[in-house]
Amino acid sequence: MTVATRTEHDLIGEREVPLDAYWGIHTLRALENFPITGIPIGVSPFLVEALAAVKEAAATTNHQLGLLDDERFAAIRQACEEIRSGELHDEFVVDVMQGGAGTSTNMNANEVIANRALELLGHKKGDYHHVHPNEHVNLSQSTNDVYPTAIKIAIILATHSLLSAMEILQASFMRKAEEFRDVLKMGRTQLQDAVPMTLGQEFATYGVMLGEDHSRLSEAVMMLHEINLGATAIGTQLNAPVGYVPIACEHLAKLTGLPLVSAVDLIEATQDCGAFVQLSGVLKRVAVKLSKICNDLRLLSSGPRAGLNEINLPAVQAGSSIMPGKVNPVIPEVVNQVAFQVIGNDVTVSMAAEGGQLQLNAFEPVICYSLSAGIYRLREAILVLATRCVDGITANRELLRSEVENSIGLVTALNPFIGYAAATEVAKEALATGRGVAELVLEKGLLPPEELAAILRPETLANLAPPQA
Amino acid sequence: MTVATRTEHDLIGEREVPLDAYWGIHTLRALENFPITGIPIGVSPFLVEALAAVKEAAATTNHQLGLLDDERFAAIRQACEEIRSGELHDEFVVDVMQGGAGTSTNMNANEVIANRALELLGHKKGDYHHVHPNEHVNLSQSTNDVYPTAIKIAIILATHSLLSAMEILQASFMRKAEEFRDVLKMGRTQLQDAVPMTLGQEFATYGVMLGEDHSRLSEAVMMLHEINLGATAIGTQLNAPVGYVPIACEHLAKLTGLPLVSAVDLIEATQDCGAFVQLSGVLKRVAVKLSKICNDLRLLSSGPRAGLNEINLPAVQAGSSIMPGKVNPVIPEVVNQVAFQVIGNDVTVSMAAEGGQLQLNAFEPVICYSLSAGIYRLREAILVLATRCVDGITANRELLRSEVENSIGLVTALNPFIGYAAATEVAKEALATGRGVAELVLEKGLLPPEELAAILRPETLANLAPPQA
Amino acid sequence: MTVATRTEHDLIGEREVPLDAYWGIHTLRALENFPITGIPIGVSPFLVEALAAVKEAAATTNHQLGLLDDERFAAIRQACEEIRSGELHDEFVVDVMQGGAGTSTNMNANEVIANRALELLGHKKGDYHHVHPNEHVNLSQSTNDVYPTAIKIAIILATHSLLSAMEILQASFMRKAEEFRDVLKMGRTQLQDAVPMTLGQEFATYGVMLGEDHSRLSEAVMMLHEINLGATAIGTQLNAPVGYVPIACEHLAKLTGLPLVSAVDLIEATQDCGAFVQLSGVLKRVAVKLSKICNDLRLLSSGPRAGLNEINLPAVQAGSSIMPGKVNPVIPEVVNQVAFQVIGNDVTVSMAAEGGQLQLNAFEPVICYSLSAGIYRLREAILVLATRCVDGITANRELLRSEVENSIGLVTALNPFIGYAAATEVAKEALATGRGVAELVLEKGLLPPEELAAILRPETLANLAPPQA
Amino acid sequence: MTVATRTEHDLIGEREVPLDAYWGIHTLRALENFPITGIPIGVSPFLVEALAAVKEAAATTNHQLGLLDDERFAAIRQACEEIRSGELHDEFVVDVMQGGAGTSTNMNANEVIANRALELLGHKKGDYHHVHPNEHVNLSQSTNDVYPTAIKIAIILATHSLLSAMEILQASFMRKAEEFRDVLKMGRTQLQDAVPMTLGQEFATYGVMLGEDHSRLSEAVMMLHEINLGATAIGTQLNAPVGYVPIACEHLAKLTGLPLVSAVDLIEATQDCGAFVQLSGVLKRVAVKLSKICNDLRLLSSGPRAGLNEINLPAVQAGSSIMPGKVNPVIPEVVNQVAFQVIGNDVTVSMAAEGGQLQLNAFEPVICYSLSAGIYRLREAILVLATRCVDGITANRELLRSEVENSIGLVTALNPFIGYAAATEVAKEALATGRGVAELVLEKGLLPPEELAAILRPETLANLAPPQA
Repeated sequence: MTVATRTEHDLIGEREVPLDAYWGIHTLRALENFPITGIPIGVSPFLVEALAAVKEAAATTNHQLGLLDDERFAAIRQACEEIRSGELHDEFVVDVMQGGAGTSTNMNANEVIANRALELLGHKKGDYHHVHPNEHVNLSQSTNDVYPTAIKIAIILATHSLLSAMEILQASFMRKAEEFRDVLKMGRTQLQDAVPMTLGQEFATYGVMLGEDHSRLSEAVMMLHEINLGATAIGTQLNAPVGYVPIACEHLAKLTGLPLVSAVDLIEATQDCGAFVQLSGVLKRVAVKLSKICNDLRLLSSGPRAGLNEINLPAVQAGSSIMPGKVNPVIPEVVNQVAFQVIGNDVTVSMAAEGGQLQLNAFEPVICYSLSAGIYRLREAILVLATRCVDGITANRELLRSEVENSIGLVTALNPFIGYAAATEVAKEALATGRGVAELVLEKGLLPPEELAAILRPETLANLAPPQA
Repeated sequence: MTVATRTEHDLIGEREVPLDAYWGIHTLRALENFPITGIPIGVSPFLVEALAAVKEAAATTNHQLGLLDDERFAAIRQACEEIRSGELHDEFVVDVMQGGAGTSTNMNANEVIANRALELLGHKKGDYHHVHPNEHVNLSQSTNDVYPTAIKIAIILATHSLLSAMEILQASFMRKAEEFRDVLKMGRTQLQDAVPMTLGQEFATYGVMLGEDHSRLSEAVMMLHEINLGATAIGTQLNAPVGYVPIACEHLAKLTGLPLVSAVDLIEATQDCGAFVQLSGVLKRVAVKLSKICNDLRLLSSGPRAGLNEINLPAVQAGSSIMPGKVNPVIPEVVNQVAFQVIGNDVTVSMAAEGGQLQLNAFEPVICYSLSAGIYRLREAILVLATRCVDGITANRELLRSEVENSIGLVTALNPFIGYAAATEVAKEALATGRGVAELVLEKGLLPPEELAAILRPETLANLAPPQA
Repeated sequence: MTVATRTEHDLIGEREVPLDAYWGIHTLRALENFPITGIPIGVSPFLVEALAAVKEAAATTNHQLGLLDDERFAAIRQACEEIRSGELHDEFVVDVMQGGAGTSTNMNANEVIANRALELLGHKKGDYHHVHPNEHVNLSQSTNDVYPTAIKIAIILATHSLLSAMEILQASFMRKAEEFRDVLKMGRTQLQDAVPMTLGQEFATYGVMLGEDHSRLSEAVMMLHEINLGATAIGTQLNAPVGYVPIACEHLAKLTGLPLVSAVDLIEATQDCGAFVQLSGVLKRVAVKLSKICNDLRLLSSGPRAGLNEINLPAVQAGSSIMPGKVNPVIPEVVNQVAFQVIGNDVTVSMAAEGGQLQLNAFEPVICYSLSAGIYRLREAILVLATRCVDGITANRELLRSEVENSIGLVTALNPFIGYAAATEVAKEALATGRGVAELVLEKGLLPPEELAAILRPETLANLAPPQA
Repeated sequence: MTVATRTEHDLIGEREVPLDAYWGIHTLRALENFPITGIPIGVSPFLVEALAAVKEAAATTNHQLGLLDDERFAAIRQACEEIRSGELHDEFVVDVMQGGAGTSTNMNANEVIANRALELLGHKKGDYHHVHPNEHVNLSQSTNDVYPTAIKIAIILATHSLLSAMEILQASFMRKAEEFRDVLKMGRTQLQDAVPMTLGQEFATYGVMLGEDHSRLSEAVMMLHEINLGATAIGTQLNAPVGYVPIACEHLAKLTGLPLVSAVDLIEATQDCGAFVQLSGVLKRVAVKLSKICNDLRLLSSGPRAGLNEINLPAVQAGSSIMPGKVNPVIPEVVNQVAFQVIGNDVTVSMAAEGGQLQLNAFEPVICYSLSAGIYRLREAILVLATRCVDGITANRELLRSEVENSIGLVTALNPFIGYAAATEVAKEALATGRGVAELVLEKGLLPPEELAAILRPETLANLAPPQA
């Protein structure tokens, strides 16, 4: 079966392109050059729509500055609007992993927009003298300003969706903190019994952690709002008309609804990957904390009989193909694994950023892919963790309370009253004999019963009064 | 539109499964629990076929030991054979990222095989009392031995395809080494002109490097041939019949054609990820070297006028959307980026391995995914590098020779004849005046012309005689 | 030779401690337990002084709240003051790598301060009933609040010294930017000749980058000002008297001159390593950029004859034991290596943070060591880079100008006047024939000479007019 | 106070060197250029002695080939022998972190040896026309072959000491495996109770793991025995006399007692860091496993009352400055932290290896330092783990047995007799009611008492019969 084709040519020569394809020869060559992951850039709607927004902002600016005529502008704008509303995403076919610093992504966009504009104007695809991918769609632009601008917008939007997911998980933890606010339990340091606290305090901690991460991530994503649109090849604005930079930025801000600003030093901005590295570092921070939280959830729910068994995670699937009745912490486990990926991706991003040379970083595609994949997966993992795990957690209240009552760590609370040395003796005897701390203190006459009882009141031990500060 | 369904149940309760699906309720729950990457395990034929091979080996062993009747065995075997020949891969739908230590992957396989076997026996899907995913397909098995065994086989097969790609690239470099064997050029250390060599030597180095990496990778993959099939849940072989371990291993070796052996200590083997960590470390080694080679290729081809300009990479696409005529080293660039991913993945694998607790590592899915993705991408990147870049490299012979003739580094060869101190003086004067080393040596009467000429013969300088050892 | 000793005892038993040592039995056991690096905590004056400041703030608060009598307080304060002024640092002998979440560091401090206080009061070392390491020096405290507070202060102070070094380097780059502001050169993207710029712009970029990193690092270090002093064991403030938290924080802020604040949620603050992970991520960012800059410096100074040879780094040592006259970029090279360490340390910090369990992170010692070593080394590397490299850089102005004149990249500037297609033809012909772009444009009559000259004016090409925004 | 000095000069000019110093002007400049860590190369006896061995082998070869006279050879050899026996190590003062690809280390060695040789011959230090650091001590050598050869030898020797430590720890685990061979306990997967095993099996696993790591590390270190001595600057053997390569290698092998061989391709060997990357990857593997083992030990010893409390680690220091009687797993904790460093160092090594350019890797100093520090720390950590932790571990046998008896996981063993579905029902009921599995099975009449007892025999459950293979 033969596919009908049209002929296109470039710097290197002529090639046949499928007649129906909106993409053209540059995209074709990229498909051949980069058969790496099989994942097309079109899988990310954020990226495709960001590209279209950048192209529309550029076209609007060119039109306003008199460089693009009404007809071509209208067609290009229409094509961009369609893409931004979800059309033609499957024409963005180049691989997410590509050489060329994003040129293939930019040319894929230029070609799709040009051919859709041609179609809108009643021309055939490939009739580029009417609307040309480079001369018209890419007018006043270079991959080196278009691509970083587009991926920044895409990553901003993706991060917003991650931040929303984090809010949901934070709320889940806070609801549990409220639910468990009077459940006394033993706190542990270095996995050894320490002093009492409440399960509510334990879960509130996770909520607070997520809140802090939310703040840090919100700050980090703000750095991405500084763009270099109009910088062209190396930041000197060569071929961008006077006035282009501020106007294009303003149009793009309006189109996306984002508070974008032009970088003060466009040469620096064109080669710098600092904002990506920063964001990656903060994503890694989120991952590290999330993994720590999941480790705790798995540990606290260990058992059911030969573990800590303090909490129960909801059963979301049978745990074993061989062990009947076994239920495993599968949701925290998948979150851990996503976290490990994000932490590994951070090394990838660091190496890619470090490898940039002179006026451009050619490795932005892998930076974009690593960040995007990490953000999407964190988002999904967090949503699953909230809705399929945390929301359904229950506490084994009896067991938790008996832990505290039997605990040797209670002795710490007696320090100010009987001294560290005497307390140490009590602790050692309790450990050796298996007896209780309170029992021993009374037996030795170290404290009168009423005073001991007052000291060991749960509210006191866990400091449940409102914080002093 | 409603999809026709059948009802299945598990430990947790009842659910409707699409009537046509070969997968069942366990897979359904996994789909809901792990909507992480959108990449189903079925994208990797190596993994799907390895799972089917393991299931077939287990069924064969169970049949041989009298635990599985003829009819069920025949149906299960047939189902496995079909999968191994490429059928039903799109029924392996659970996400590559999953909690549960691979249970969802194992159950997806058990369900698909059971339902296909049911179909072969004339039963309806879901009629599990005839052929049951757990009781029959998973008989004598646990996820904890099936899953690691299957992913080892899948990774072995993937690595074999990577090794083949490496041989192709090595051959490409060696052909260039032969082509450029008499092209004299300046060698450089620390990016400073050092002493002469040939471009052939430079390319042969890359070939030799790849050859060494090939050897190391071949060794590392051998470690994966030690499997724990029959270990069941934690390695104590609970529920595996006497004799199962060696027979199942033998059947699996025969089915796959791989020299598989049973681990001597099955408890250790069940929790240990050492072979994966080792392989990941060697993949990282391959990536590090490949990235170094690509860095060199990009540097040597820098220019065309304000760079080293020693070699020309073939133009495979237009380099710029704004700079006419620009051709960029896009193939080495994409290889660099794949290398950065592999290096980052190694951190992911390390963390996953480190996070294993007690008798099992629950994070093998991310290990499997990280290794597999890295191997596939390295393979594709290497093939593209060989066929679309190295094979077409040409040398700028004139420029290379003139570099040597003008070089100050020539003075090093005179050390044994005029001493380090005198040589240093000549070098400093050459640098200051822009004059040539030979000219200055003759002018100062440090050596007679004939002796100087003999010392500076290219063959001598680059040590082109066969190696002494 | 026997060393005179005194007898001390702890939970485990009795031991002989050197009679003259200010440290005691807890330190002795730590010395035996952690013979890991041979690097004592005393090598960091910032840490020792921070510990003493925390102890002094705690004693002052205890005294103010009536828990510590005048005599003991005066002696403890005096001991702390002496340590803060540089005394007794060689008594801080426990290894920087230690288990126990910093307990050995805290007890080393408690013992040194107690024994110095005893001495000041006219008692013998070890006479702990007068001043006890735990009962008096550690009063109202736990390692779990003292240690994180002290390492935060130490790291803040170290970071301040790094920020100062960054300012010096930034100023060096900016002076060079001014010096080279009219030196026209070719900009490069993907190591291929792109379009013209000035060397001044290139160096200004490095200055701007450092400035941005300075801002990010300043923000990150602010997060460390939130402390958990008074949280005691797990954050519930058990054994800390009412009022202790705000008063101790205020005293410590006054003593250190730092705007310290108490964490709102002390339980969260006690287990959280987020601020450390954040700082580590930003240090990694600094390292990545610094490494990129050094890569550029090494590349731009490559040669002297078979390299880019655009700039000259000052010769600071002979480059080779065998190649006379060779001068290598040794300063950028050592900076690169420090950067690689900092990037590796970030993985260490991530793993340590991820490994924290429940109410405490037991791995803060390695976090402290990794951050501190990275900060010190970055600081030293940056100072050396400024004073021994950047300040002495000179430009090869002739060569840089001739690069631009011969460049094919000039053709990009003609795009808006002759179109991308015609420009591509000119570029191809220039490359094939070795001829100049301007020459070909005139020959082909594409532009009149005066217009061409105007377009190719350096000021225009490099956009030397003040930025439009 | 003025220090007496002597005047030395180099490529750059003249400087005053302390009169008594064995090192000279090149070392002086390195001290000024690299004030990075404050750690001199002399802290590693392995490295200093390896440098002296290389210099002695070179001198011996030069003498044998007639390039070095008897007198100078004797003096140089004597100086090298003294250094190899431990003398003059404090004269190796350059920083472990240095630019210049090891030139400063090599010149430090050349200068110390030259000055000691001068002294032996009755000359004054600095009288280099008698024995010259470059002309005589460095004769036929380059930093680029001497330095990699020396660091390989140093790392081989360090690794041997690590391997010995691993054997000690392995033996400790195996003794415990024997001691605990009949202690039945619950095995766990995903932190959930699984099926029974023995504590002996658990500890044997750690021993087996260490044994495998020992094998892999032994293999990896073998790769370092391939050296490039005689390669000189870039591997072309320029200035090394005919015959030098094999003879020098043979002498060095004899001096060190190591089976060293010359690389077949000396150009490749001079730039390649593959063997270092491989070793680093295997060290990371060792670290990953060791960290996993320590995580397990900390988990199994968690408690004493609100934890698993299965084993007791020996108390080696008081655990808390505030909680009386608390004993923490400080030894495993410090081992974890060393492991995190080694894993981070692996990233540093990867980046340094990847950053090598063309004919040399300038970043070998950080590779050497990262590997060496990691090896030493692992060795010390492993020894402490063996002697201060594992050797003293005791088991809480009663508790372990009762865990098994109460376990729901027992039901797995009944699968083959009552089926997965019935077993699941029993498990669910046991979990819901808190009753025992055996009790329920009997009550439901699923199995006769004798058969049940036979199935649940400890020997059967834990598969204590000798392995079938």
